[in-house]
Amino acid sequence: MTDTPGPLRLSTRDAGFEDAFHARLHWSAATDRAIEAAVADILSDVQARGDEAVLEYTCRFDGFTPATMIDLEVSQRDMKLAFDQLPGQQDALEKAAHRIRTYHEAQKRACGQGWSIRDENGSLLGQKVTPLDRVGIYVPGGRAAYPSSVLMNAIPAHVAGVEEIVMVVPTPKGERNALVLAAAYVAGVNRVLTIGGAQAIAALAYGTASLPAVDKITGPGNAYVAAAKRRVFGTVGIDMIAGPSEILVLADGTTPPDWVAMDLFSQAEHDELAQSILLCPDAAYLDMVQAEMARLLPSMPRREIILASLNNRGALILTRDMEEACALSNRVAPEHLEIASHDPGRWEPLLKHAGAIFLGAWTSESLGDYCAGPNHVLPTQRTSRFSSPLGVYDFQKRSSIIEVSQTGAQALGEIASVLAEGEGLRAHACAARMRMRVSAPKS
Amino acid sequence: MTDTPGPLRLSTRDAGFEDAFHARLHWSAATDRAIEAAVADILSDVQARGDEAVLEYTCRFDGFTPATMIDLEVSQRDMKLAFDQLPGQQDALEKAAHRIRTYHEAQKRACGQGWSIRDENGSLLGQKVTPLDRVGIYVPGGRAAYPSSVLMNAIPAHVAGVEEIVMVVPTPKGERNALVLAAAYVAGVNRVLTIGGAQAIAALAYGTASLPAVDKITGPGNAYVAAAKRRVFGTVGIDMIAGPSEILVLADGTTPPDWVAMDLFSQAEHDELAQSILLCPDAAYLDMVQAEMARLLPSMPRREIILASLNNRGALILTRDMEEACALSNRVAPEHLEIASHDPGRWEPLLKHAGAIFLGAWTSESLGDYCAGPNHVLPTQRTSRFSSPLGVYDFQKRSSIIEVSQTGAQALGEIASVLAEGEGLRAHACAARMRMRVSAPKS
Repeated sequence: MTDTPGPLRLSTRDAGFEDAFHARLHWSAATDRAIEAAVADILSDVQARGDEAVLEYTCRFDGFTPATMIDLEVSQRDMKLAFDQLPGQQDALEKAAHRIRTYHEAQKRACGQGWSIRDENGSLLGQKVTPLDRVGIYVPGGRAAYPSSVLMNAIPAHVAGVEEIVMVVPTPKGERNALVLAAAYVAGVNRVLTIGGAQAIAALAYGTASLPAVDKITGPGNAYVAAAKRRVFGTVGIDMIAGPSEILVLADGTTPPDWVAMDLFSQAEHDELAQSILLCPDAAYLDMVQAEMARLLPSMPRREIILASLNNRGALILTRDMEEACALSNRVAPEHLEIASHDPGRWEPLLKHAGAIFLGAWTSESLGDYCAGPNHVLPTQRTSRFSSPLGVYDFQKRSSIIEVSQTGAQALGEIASVLAEGEGLRAHACAARMRMRVSAPKS
Repeated sequence: MTDTPGPLRLSTRDAGFEDAFHARLHWSAATDRAIEAAVADILSDVQARGDEAVLEYTCRFDGFTPATMIDLEVSQRDMKLAFDQLPGQQDALEKAAHRIRTYHEAQKRACGQGWSIRDENGSLLGQKVTPLDRVGIYVPGGRAAYPSSVLMNAIPAHVAGVEEIVMVVPTPKGERNALVLAAAYVAGVNRVLTIGGAQAIAALAYGTASLPAVDKITGPGNAYVAAAKRRVFGTVGIDMIAGPSEILVLADGTTPPDWVAMDLFSQAEHDELAQSILLCPDAAYLDMVQAEMARLLPSMPRREIILASLNNRGALILTRDMEEACALSNRVAPEHLEIASHDPGRWEPLLKHAGAIFLGAWTSESLGDYCAGPNHVLPTQRTSRFSSPLGVYDFQKRSSIIEVSQTGAQALGEIASVLAEGEGLRAHACAARMRMRVSAPKS
């Protein structure tokens, strides 16, 4: 019976619950000193030798031998060809892209606009919002090549107004993934280079003769890519460092148990470290979900990954009530949070920390992964306590705007000069005082 | 004549301009492996031994011997006492705090609100915005103790709705800075601990018996603090890693030259690595500013720092016209950008990258440092290409909200299942398809 999914069963009433719960949640990225050192070397080598180093590492790590950087560039024509030749997914890609674009356009209208106020002296105070000039998108290659990630990274950048979107994607043995290229075409990516690993991050961050440096790099990657992103942070912006994916389902027992079982599977099938947790105050419902898991597992092509993930990190937890389930969820701060309830609006206000909240039985997490519209790049590993889904705001930045009136300079000069003197900064104080009690400069 | 300020004079017409300009801008934080290793040890020690380790490092690095963590905590009563006993700066502190609060409240209204849309199927898509639970503010101690930084970090957190704001500030030899404590009182800081360095960052990030872990750490510090923040990023959120401070002044020659000279000084007096650049199409005006610098320097208490900063990193650059000056400014992407012009609104739209833009002769940068209202924590070292002033948004995070209707589940299920199969994720596809062509679940 090794094929029976065995997520840990816990109850919050158990004496050992706190320890068991804590142990199940625990995960930490191993900091591998060998990877750190290798990445540091690759970064400085690409910084020093540019394209030549990128070509060498591509030969070495991806197992094919491009002669020049031109061989590593995918033309717009090839991207369109990949799209045109897809075996029937064009419509789904375009509809998904349209919905993602519509959502992010609304996001830009709601929270990506400049603003200003005038104070009592007529001084103007506000912020202007401008897009980044050029961004790089890292797309993993090989096994975990996800065209949906291309849409989710490129479309918000496009909506933000970024002028140049450069995508990099490794192509082990030179094999290109048609669905990924088609997604790049649909998302309006400007340039695609078939490079990956730390060498691709270095090329994007520092620039080479054939690739101008970008201002920010987003997108997930393996341990080398993550280490490289952490190191170039500051030279360029980066998005978050992603950990294993997670789902937490809050169930009141009204959603068909096979739906919930499949939602837990859909998280678990990502990889063996993915985490699926179900919280419910109804023990009989937990039994039903577990029975559905056993029934459904054999039909899953990725059943071995699902099983390992559930055995390692899954949990079905009996809670005293839904309120307690919500409080536990806030401690987990999950990436994906499903409220499988007939009255999700009752629980949603209690939930403080989550990357995305899926309300009601009809909202499977997988709809959010592909086409509901909101971004599927979400904070993992409790980082939703302090960070947000990838969005238009990640491809914009703000500049403060300050225009002090002559009257304002008098009032503010008084305050600033007192505080500047308190900090021992005389030039600051003088700059403020010079503007006091004088007439307007010539204009 | 070693006391004559000697910022480099350049002209964009010079043959060697590009190289000279590039060399003057260049700055890179030395990565000191000894500091990196020391910080890694301190972090893991505090993570393992908690308060005990914090007390030991405080003895060792700050030169006084607290017996317990209680000795390191400043009571609300002591904070109020510090405020009450200030020699006359109460009014300036309170007025500055009021203006900063007003600005950040407007910022929260303008870009810190949740939003949602409904699609054609009646599905709800949006984001909710919630404050972080608990944040830590690092305030440098000793020489560079800036009460204004306490206001600028704590007030946006407070306006965001953060429930607990914990401030740490080292007190070398146990000497507390009254103005810093008074600012903490005015800004509504909840707890103050007199600890600093990497040990303070570790205590905030991991928590100890006497100090619960925070969700994000903001505020500047020395190389140890910067290295520690970079390492705990991911466990907690951090703000940017600050480099030397910078000002770039675009002048059309209409602002009194002594005002501009003093504005350049006010940047240069921060430290010897600070950068002050003036761009102007009028050579005679550059001469006048330089003459004012020579005249004003002797009266500056920090003239040696000013002189070193100007000699090392300052530049007065003659441009062909204001348009060229704006284009150069975009390449610099300065932290502080003054438009010293009688018509600043003409140039502002041309400026893409800057932390804060100060418009017109009356708006000295120093007013923004203390009391105009906008935040003085700004992106340095060209990072305004991709990052923003500290703001309310740094103390909030967003969660996507998705509520798919029954009709929506049919339409979206079709798209999602095609794309999920394309990515080889059957459970994702099944979770979507299960919701198709079925009647509503019991409720």
